Amino acid sequence: MRITVLAGGVGGARFVRGVREEVRRRFPDGAGGSEASVDVVVNTGDDLWLAGVRLWPDFDSLLYALAGVNDTERGWGRAGETERVAAELREWGVGWPWFTLGDLDLGTHLARTAWLREGLAPAQVAERLQARWPLGVRLLPATDAEVDTHVLVDDPDAPGGADAPGGGAPTRELHFQEWWTRYRATLPAREFRQRNLGTARPAPGVVEAIADADVVLVAPSNPVVSIGTILAIPGIREALAATDAPVVGVSPIIGGAVVRGMADACLSAIGVQTDAAAVARHYGARHSEARHYGARSDATGAADTTDGARGLLDGWLVAEEDAAEVDGLRADGFAARAVPLWMRDLETSAALAGAALDLALPGP
Amino acid sequence: MRITVLAGGVGGARFVRGVREEVRRRFPDGAGGSEASVDVVVNTGDDLWLAGVRLWPDFDSLLYALAGVNDTERGWGRAGETERVAAELREWGVGWPWFTLGDLDLGTHLARTAWLREGLAPAQVAERLQARWPLGVRLLPATDAEVDTHVLVDDPDAPGGADAPGGGAPTRELHFQEWWTRYRATLPAREFRQRNLGTARPAPGVVEAIADADVVLVAPSNPVVSIGTILAIPGIREALAATDAPVVGVSPIIGGAVVRGMADACLSAIGVQTDAAAVARHYGARHSEARHYGARSDATGAADTTDGARGLLDGWLVAEEDAAEVDGLRADGFAARAVPLWMRDLETSAALAGAALDLALPGP
Repeated sequence: MRITVLAGGVGGARFVRGVREEVRRRFPDGAGGSEASVDVVVNTGDDLWLAGVRLWPDFDSLLYALAGVNDTERGWGRAGETERVAAELREWGVGWPWFTLGDLDLGTHLARTAWLREGLAPAQVAERLQARWPLGVRLLPATDAEVDTHVLVDDPDAPGGADAPGGGAPTRELHFQEWWTRYRATLPAREFRQRNLGTARPAPGVVEAIADADVVLVAPSNPVVSIGTILAIPGIREALAATDAPVVGVSPIIGGAVVRGMADACLSAIGVQTDAAAVARHYGARHSEARHYGARSDATGAADTTDGARGLLDGWLVAEEDAAEVDGLRADGFAARAVPLWMRDLETSAALAGAALDLALPGP
Repeated sequence: MRITVLAGGVGGARFVRGVREEVRRRFPDGAGGSEASVDVVVNTGDDLWLAGVRLWPDFDSLLYALAGVNDTERGWGRAGETERVAAELREWGVGWPWFTLGDLDLGTHLARTAWLREGLAPAQVAERLQARWPLGVRLLPATDAEVDTHVLVDDPDAPGGADAPGGGAPTRELHFQEWWTRYRATLPAREFRQRNLGTARPAPGVVEAIADADVVLVAPSNPVVSIGTILAIPGIREALAATDAPVVGVSPIIGGAVVRGMADACLSAIGVQTDAAAVARHYGARHSEARHYGARSDATGAADTTDGARGLLDGWLVAEEDAAEVDGLRADGFAARAVPLWMRDLETSAALAGAALDLALPGP
């Protein structure tokens, strides 16, 4: 059993921990692990160069959470973190004063940067980083290219800003992290721009992970800047469209509000409502009718993928609060189900992962 | 009054602190500083990339010592240093376990690396770094090129090593820092190799600092891998030969032993005795007879520099323990003098700097 998950950072990490736990129970190997393999295609759009080092925020969130060394109280970074170096960086005026790099975390950034300097590709660096701990899953950066997301906003420092007379308010492009962390996504985004998408390719193993999967799960991560960036890499959307595996997503919206983060600000920027069904329709249904799961190689499946359908999802899990959406989603071709969606702890995360697997692989 | 000093790291820093103190006394500006300017041409041969960041060991030794933030007990690095990140780097297997990067020190390396990544030249980065503290002197990296010194040794890991049968023992090239810090210079060096010397040029300001100086001082730094590397950069030796300023050096050898470090191992590698007079002769006398100092623009000076003399020094200070060498040095064309050479504290360092200035600029 091969399971492939598309995921962003903190929310993605919570979901993937649930998947890892659920497959250990459902497909045990008798030694505390699982016979099933779990590959995670990780968003790289949040990545950036800062203070001389390369940061992979989403990858590190997954790495730390799966290794059990993350700070669960603060919700990000390493447990037991200190900030000796960060104080020096502020003295030097290097980096962003509102984006603190912890000492333990800097160890990761330095190791990564050293290996990149040695000429290793990001996918190879990712292999080395995850070799430190037995994660039980494989993390694959979506691409080796630097596709850092930037956000076009009305210039917050321009006199008059968007209200300046004469129209055509001045705009500014911020790195996504600046928009997200410094401005808490409060500056209305006009547009998200991924760099280098023209030449970006899926990292080694990504297309195979999707093509050879028995199930593909889309984590309840930010549909625009996390999952959206993964899908924007030429070749990944095509691999999803072509895979024989059922593709099931989990809504990041509960009752019209985002589960965490500020995904609503991202959704409005691309004209999508903050609504569980709207996000499903943004991803799109793969088939005009609900697909017959489990028929991996049947002729219908092959025909379906060629008849112009552009959607990515077979199934979509919404929260119980959004149960009223289920019928409409089914009519639009999604296998939809309402389940408890809050991931409060490992149990609720595993239950959610189990519900996603159930929707993807209905029993005989 | 413009004074230019060629210097390596820790010993150079001690000497330059003495020069700064002495010029404040001798050429006071009435505000606690000096009317005289002191430029320091800093060895860059020890520099290296490690753990993803660029290290400038000699520059940082000078920077920290002149800023008064150096660890005087340990003799290197920052005072109050901690090693949080270094422990992580060891876990990652990145960097050298025998070469600890302190947290405060890493702040410097990260700032430097960030600015280099932004496209600043090393000389510009050096300007930014020294802007943090009022140093009272200007530090100029000798070159913007990466001329990292490597050492050719008999391979310490090869079976049999230098005694392997069949002759032609296998050799290995180590970065100077590995040879120096890991092996404490105990592996006999066959040769020192500076990288990129063919295309290296003096950094902006270096040739001018030598050409326009009233006095050039050569610190009692390692004659091979510190001063030798500075001199090996095409254009610097020529600038020294051409300057009208007297050039006075201070012996790094006292009574046949090195003052600090393991310069003897470097000297033997290039066939120079560990002896105060031998080092002077290695640098060479600029003139066959002792020069008439103070006659900056006289015709004799101009004539002297064109008559085939290849040496660099006008004057040479030896230790009182080596007073017996003075007559022989004078016969060879050096203005030589025996003075107390141990720099135990600021007073003795300033006195040594004063003696060097006295030798360079004899009173009327």
